[in-house]
Amino acid sequence: MTRYDTLFSRAAATMQESAIRKMGALGLKSADLVSFAPGFPAPDVFAWGEFQDIARSLLDGSDGTVLQYGPTRGYRPLVEALVDILAGRHIRVAPEDLIVTTGSQQALDLTARIFINPGDAVLVELPTYTGAISAFRNAQAQLVGVRQDGDGIDLDELDRIVVGERAAGTRIAFLYVVPNFQNPTGLLISLDKRRRLLEWAARRDVLLVEDDPYGALHFDDVADAAETRPMKADDGDGRVVYLSSFSKTVAPGFRVAWMAAPAPIAAKLEVAKQAADLCTGALDQRIVHELWKRGAIDARLPALRAYYQEKRRVMEEAFRRELGTDVTWPAPKGGFFLWASFPAGVSTDALLTRAIAHGVVYVAGSAFFVDGRSSNLARLSFSAPSADRIREGIRRLAAALRAELACSVRLQADLTSG
Amino acid sequence: MTRYDTLFSRAAATMQESAIRKMGALGLKSADLVSFAPGFPAPDVFAWGEFQDIARSLLDGSDGTVLQYGPTRGYRPLVEALVDILAGRHIRVAPEDLIVTTGSQQALDLTARIFINPGDAVLVELPTYTGAISAFRNAQAQLVGVRQDGDGIDLDELDRIVVGERAAGTRIAFLYVVPNFQNPTGLLISLDKRRRLLEWAARRDVLLVEDDPYGALHFDDVADAAETRPMKADDGDGRVVYLSSFSKTVAPGFRVAWMAAPAPIAAKLEVAKQAADLCTGALDQRIVHELWKRGAIDARLPALRAYYQEKRRVMEEAFRRELGTDVTWPAPKGGFFLWASFPAGVSTDALLTRAIAHGVVYVAGSAFFVDGRSSNLARLSFSAPSADRIREGIRRLAAALRAELACSVRLQADLTSG
Repeated sequence: MTRYDTLFSRAAATMQESAIRKMGALGLKSADLVSFAPGFPAPDVFAWGEFQDIARSLLDGSDGTVLQYGPTRGYRPLVEALVDILAGRHIRVAPEDLIVTTGSQQALDLTARIFINPGDAVLVELPTYTGAISAFRNAQAQLVGVRQDGDGIDLDELDRIVVGERAAGTRIAFLYVVPNFQNPTGLLISLDKRRRLLEWAARRDVLLVEDDPYGALHFDDVADAAETRPMKADDGDGRVVYLSSFSKTVAPGFRVAWMAAPAPIAAKLEVAKQAADLCTGALDQRIVHELWKRGAIDARLPALRAYYQEKRRVMEEAFRRELGTDVTWPAPKGGFFLWASFPAGVSTDALLTRAIAHGVVYVAGSAFFVDGRSSNLARLSFSAPSADRIREGIRRLAAALRAELACSVRLQADLTSG
Repeated sequence: MTRYDTLFSRAAATMQESAIRKMGALGLKSADLVSFAPGFPAPDVFAWGEFQDIARSLLDGSDGTVLQYGPTRGYRPLVEALVDILAGRHIRVAPEDLIVTTGSQQALDLTARIFINPGDAVLVELPTYTGAISAFRNAQAQLVGVRQDGDGIDLDELDRIVVGERAAGTRIAFLYVVPNFQNPTGLLISLDKRRRLLEWAARRDVLLVEDDPYGALHFDDVADAAETRPMKADDGDGRVVYLSSFSKTVAPGFRVAWMAAPAPIAAKLEVAKQAADLCTGALDQRIVHELWKRGAIDARLPALRAYYQEKRRVMEEAFRRELGTDVTWPAPKGGFFLWASFPAGVSTDALLTRAIAHGVVYVAGSAFFVDGRSSNLARLSFSAPSADRIREGIRRLAAALRAELACSVRLQADLTSG
């Protein structure tokens, strides 16, 4: 049996490797490489002492369910804790509206599977998160990008697209948005635009999928918690499916995230999850729940915000010192990412090879554009590297950029003289 | 937005709730209910002391990757350990042939997604594991059951079906088999039949998916390790996708399982898994790996085998004492299940309501038949309840059966006299 491609399904034939995962793997191979590629939280601010203490007590053998198969909806006390956590975000839900997922990636995958028929349109921000692109593409959606302004998605273009797609007979499965510190742009949708987006969705009868992994991590120097109010909080007619996660505020190694959706949708997600992985890890859920019960998740948020805000400051400062105004970006008001715009004419796809040779890696903007465009944009994650490594990485990136520019000037000269 | 069903995809519309999960949930609701429904391993034989010790050392904060996002293929030292573990099962693979999955359910799901087009035939044993049925159905496969003899799948019928399906223009995605202590029947495919099945697959060019969660748990009083040799060990031309798991030998709460497949298939599975959940839980994988490194997985197997063998003995004895020869079953040579055949005319679907009223629950045979038949068969899992609870549960089941039979005799009498 040598011709394996004839075995694969049509869905498999179109599956694409994640650019972030590919770049992330590079970082693991060379210790000296400064990696701005993956959106990793920083392990130095994980609650190690608490984890150790909680794990010791959970694993004493007195409660067998700690390591047993568990309910598909999630460990019940954690589901009940989520009701509380969401109330803190002004979202009122009952346990029937909730499901724990194996990371937010699974939430995206389950969303894709219960809503998308092959050929359906899924509307996304342009650019948008690659993990969402993969999940929706694997369900054979046709991804349609909507441009963003400084305060997020362009509502006029959104409306034109929906009207056009429907006129062409295309079913719209849903609109996927990341209102808080969007991945990759770091943009925040304004409260006014959120309200108008909800009204628009009701008028056009479109389902909204709101992904909120970074909402708790705003930067106090430029934003406040009120600006991160999820659209789900004002979802009067039950058309918002809300995703969030403990990966950024507790640790991603636990793979614990969740969804809030109208009960009939949550019930369907549960059936889909049964067949996807039966249940999320029992120990992981118990540790996260116990951490919440101790008040340690909320108590740690102010320090986390300050920590990532400082990382952002260091990266912004390093960019300005090394490259002046050659590279610009929309100021991130929270989250993990700086969306850098390189000088016109520089392709961040081409620059990447040179950057890696200089010992630094990022994710080229092309990975986030569903229309396949290459560009002068790149996502740099400041969350994981230390301040010194951030400075070193930007120094290397500046050197790579100067070399690239010199080379293209020479090429230009050669072309002119030739 | 009230009409949620119009939002769902065609795949979602056909998704069905797992009967095992439904029955399992019942057990959680009533403490007194004796549950023979879910195939839970017994927590009293988990390696709690080791887990506690390993977790303490892993969570000391010295290695941030313990709780970070990890490679989609799995924690590399665990992948390398799997090469060794599989060598012990006579399977020779390289790391490129392997992928760690979030439980075997995810392995089934990824298998479904990369091989099945809507409408493809997937061949399964009749009866077969419900989790596989769900995963394959959710990919919109058409499931075709093949009857089993005392030593597993009937090769003549298998051949007739494949020839017939192909003549009708149907694509065969793969054959799914559980050769070791099949779920739900407990049957073991004989070594001779395994050899003939491999030859048949080569002749008919059919991909084999071999699911082996219970292989390490044979019962020494009626079987030996040689009888559990996986077909993958003799997969000369790379047509076997092999699934196994730590859920039954370590603990299911960790959600760590794996697949071995020809490298091009493993690469495709990796891309599918990226979009499904990015990676399996980092802490879970580290704990399982450390347990293996200490030699504690292999060292514990003889005791585990003896433990489950004794549970099986207790259930068989209880059945004979309570019901004589009214209920029969193929003697399980390993695994967790007894596949009970009730007196002709008894529907285990109908009996279930009465059984629950008597305080005992099982999974009715109908859940395992892809042809939808109701029958006098039922799966009873002896793995989790204590010996006393097994005896009590079978006592209750016998009472329920006697009441059911008395009722049907009365009904018969009424019908005759009426």
